[in-house]
Amino acid sequence: MPNTSEQFYEKCRAIHDLQEVQQLLEWDMQVMMPRKGVDQRGNHQAALATAIHEKVTEPGLGGLIEELAARQDLGIGLAADVREAKRARDRAVKVPARLVAERAQVCALAQVAWEEGKKNNDFAAFRPHLEAVLNIVREMARAIGGDQNPYDALLDEYEPGMTEGALTATFSDLRDRLVPLLDKIKGARRRPSQDLVKRPYSLAAQEAFSRRVMADMGFDTEAGRMDVSAHPFTNGTFRDVRITTRYQETFLNMALFGTMHEAGHALYEQGLDPERYRDPAGQYCSLGIHESQSRFWENMIGRSRPFWRRYFPQLKAAFPGVLDGVAEEEFYGAVNVVEPSLIRVEADEVTYNLHIILRFELESALLAGKLEAADLPAAWNEKMRSFLGIVPPDDREGVLQDVHWSVGLIGYFPTYALGNLYSAQFARAMRRDMPDLDERVAAGKLGDVKAWLNANIHVHGRRYLPQDLCAKVTGEPLSADSALEYLNAKFGEIYGF
Amino acid sequence: MPNTSEQFYEKCRAIHDLQEVQQLLEWDMQVMMPRKGVDQRGNHQAALATAIHEKVTEPGLGGLIEELAARQDLGIGLAADVREAKRARDRAVKVPARLVAERAQVCALAQVAWEEGKKNNDFAAFRPHLEAVLNIVREMARAIGGDQNPYDALLDEYEPGMTEGALTATFSDLRDRLVPLLDKIKGARRRPSQDLVKRPYSLAAQEAFSRRVMADMGFDTEAGRMDVSAHPFTNGTFRDVRITTRYQETFLNMALFGTMHEAGHALYEQGLDPERYRDPAGQYCSLGIHESQSRFWENMIGRSRPFWRRYFPQLKAAFPGVLDGVAEEEFYGAVNVVEPSLIRVEADEVTYNLHIILRFELESALLAGKLEAADLPAAWNEKMRSFLGIVPPDDREGVLQDVHWSVGLIGYFPTYALGNLYSAQFARAMRRDMPDLDERVAAGKLGDVKAWLNANIHVHGRRYLPQDLCAKVTGEPLSADSALEYLNAKFGEIYGF
Repeated sequence: MPNTSEQFYEKCRAIHDLQEVQQLLEWDMQVMMPRKGVDQRGNHQAALATAIHEKVTEPGLGGLIEELAARQDLGIGLAADVREAKRARDRAVKVPARLVAERAQVCALAQVAWEEGKKNNDFAAFRPHLEAVLNIVREMARAIGGDQNPYDALLDEYEPGMTEGALTATFSDLRDRLVPLLDKIKGARRRPSQDLVKRPYSLAAQEAFSRRVMADMGFDTEAGRMDVSAHPFTNGTFRDVRITTRYQETFLNMALFGTMHEAGHALYEQGLDPERYRDPAGQYCSLGIHESQSRFWENMIGRSRPFWRRYFPQLKAAFPGVLDGVAEEEFYGAVNVVEPSLIRVEADEVTYNLHIILRFELESALLAGKLEAADLPAAWNEKMRSFLGIVPPDDREGVLQDVHWSVGLIGYFPTYALGNLYSAQFARAMRRDMPDLDERVAAGKLGDVKAWLNANIHVHGRRYLPQDLCAKVTGEPLSADSALEYLNAKFGEIYGF
Repeated sequence: MPNTSEQFYEKCRAIHDLQEVQQLLEWDMQVMMPRKGVDQRGNHQAALATAIHEKVTEPGLGGLIEELAARQDLGIGLAADVREAKRARDRAVKVPARLVAERAQVCALAQVAWEEGKKNNDFAAFRPHLEAVLNIVREMARAIGGDQNPYDALLDEYEPGMTEGALTATFSDLRDRLVPLLDKIKGARRRPSQDLVKRPYSLAAQEAFSRRVMADMGFDTEAGRMDVSAHPFTNGTFRDVRITTRYQETFLNMALFGTMHEAGHALYEQGLDPERYRDPAGQYCSLGIHESQSRFWENMIGRSRPFWRRYFPQLKAAFPGVLDGVAEEEFYGAVNVVEPSLIRVEADEVTYNLHIILRFELESALLAGKLEAADLPAAWNEKMRSFLGIVPPDDREGVLQDVHWSVGLIGYFPTYALGNLYSAQFARAMRRDMPDLDERVAAGKLGDVKAWLNANIHVHGRRYLPQDLCAKVTGEPLSADSALEYLNAKFGEIYGF
């Protein structure tokens, strides 16, 4: 007869394995599934979600968790596993099946309405669906959090331990210091141009170059794969991690930095502890920490001077004739152009965070009932004007651009900006441990970067809460300081102020 | 509160949906999965199999089945669903979990031992594993069938209602009439040559040609896809049916007839009743009937004279220069060469059945304890000599060539030959309904063939037992007559006797 912790792990790992299958269904749907398979896939997802929900909520697991949680003698690993299993189970138990089904239905309709609304630039048609989503999300937050601040109850799923209050403090600080930085950039006399990355880059060579960089980063192609999809994403874990990318012939950034971004996510998954990746605390720490890994590779490495010292000659060779006579410095400027723009996913390092803070402030006000859905477009446009100095010509390029709210993801956007903040903090810590980091990157030693991330971030999985992991690795709590220091130094140099 | 039959269907369909997911895991493993993902995939399969087993065996479903089975007023559809759900559940309930786990373990080891044994031409190393497989399979047959003939208990999973006795009668008849046919062919003066299909056929053009034929057959590419794998197979159902093929530059038959074979399977799945494909009796009738569909398209159509009347000019155009000066008649002979050979999967229409009967006779004797595993190679070779007049130079090309026995598939081989017999019976019935069948095929109206199969076979799913479906469609019970009539006529004409 297996003992309590053995029984606990057996149940948790079976749940984990089925969750991996859920991910595979999602990947297949985006990348491989024939068009008409969509209804069957819906049935697959529903049947699997039900089976998982049954296993998560069955009383036997609850009893094991209670028994273990009551003990004082758990080691740090088992304690973390019990904590995470309890978090997941509590959420699942607290939400009645009726609400889960209703949420799925409301969001399915809302997503279709969002697609239509975006296509037709018709926010009014989407508005009742958004209201329905907000109502059901509020109800879920109450079911999970009781009297707790509803936004915190939602946030806890994506960024365990994070609160609206902490986000408000950090993001306000970030916003108040980013806007003046952006003003300085707007007013600078030195102005790099994006023209260099908008020349015709052959698709086959783009793929080959992206794959080379991905391999240099240490992505194990025998433990993962790369395909094409409409919206790039990373899927899977440990020894089966799949990323997607997309190519645009006259815009080098899309595939190259997109691949580095997703490969950054993938290295995290491939870097999890082999003995623990199926355990509750063996998976990735949080969405914010996950995003820190993608943004680290995309920006801290991919858009860095030493990276291009190494790769610019290779890039020139890979695209004969395209970059003749172009200096490395000029190209470095081209991949780092800062320009207020309307679309979040196309934003540069400086303005990206402002896009996120805007969404955070709006969704937080919506959830609290301080902002009506009907007033959302105007509020969106006003914040765009105030943060970025531009206003969308229509809602399609404004409030209707992202899918997230329509599928009930409230409390999710902040993790994107948290990723940027964490990545800057991690970069500072990495430099502390490797003062010659720039020289190593310029020498092509990307493996040293990966090894540091493996040892300091990846292997810990979810053993620590994200804020605790940050403190452990960097010696400091979450803060906007490192990001602002990094952005000011980098763009001050590029833009000459 | 849903009524009994609604509850019954809800449970059955959830099980079906999870079984579709099982299939997808298998497809992905063969076609897409990165190499190092294999251990995780094992975990996925185990977790999903357990979840399905729990749902199949849970008492609630058992009660619903009992309640419905006791009623006298079920319509034919519901009655068939209850019968099939009961069959599947009874098998699952009767086999203890210990035996399922033991079988999985024994077969996993045996498969590895078979691979090694085949590579090293070492039957002795594989023998103890084969004995272990036979023991566990015997134990399963006893658990399922009690005092029933153990071979019948196994067979019932693949070919419901079929018995060893019926097979012995039909296969003996078939064998006793095939051997003289083969002798006539061996002694014929007219001898077509395979050289024409062994010229260099460009791989890209092979793929394009195969896809064109597949489309002409009516395979819906929006409800399926075609990829490459080491061993071709068909996977999935209804609106997500995936086939694989493989290409050999100097052997046209492999990809072309392989694709037609798998597309034949696929048309069956795409042709299931849209309202019923998730129900217990809504799926394919049996493996024998499934194989009848693949063999029908591969042989009755793909290797027919009218097919090549239509496609030979297109083939010539698709491979410029390869078939200059070749007459249609000559090419028709080339795709129909009969030649005793060692390897089942490469066998022609006449000798293929003898390969199967050999395996049936041997596995039947092994299971009954009338043949010792140690004596198997000699028995194999003796039957090869007696049926085909050739003897394998070693066990690699003899008794070790197939994976089936190592993975516990006893009672499975016969379905391949049943497929041939059924396909010939269906062809006769089709000709009865469409006397101008040849003219239609020669005019490229493959859609008429598909429509007949859709209406007479596919849409019924598992409503009738295979033998009953055969009788309903052809007016006759299973028999070797149609196949022998077809083979004698076709090859008498080709070989001139």
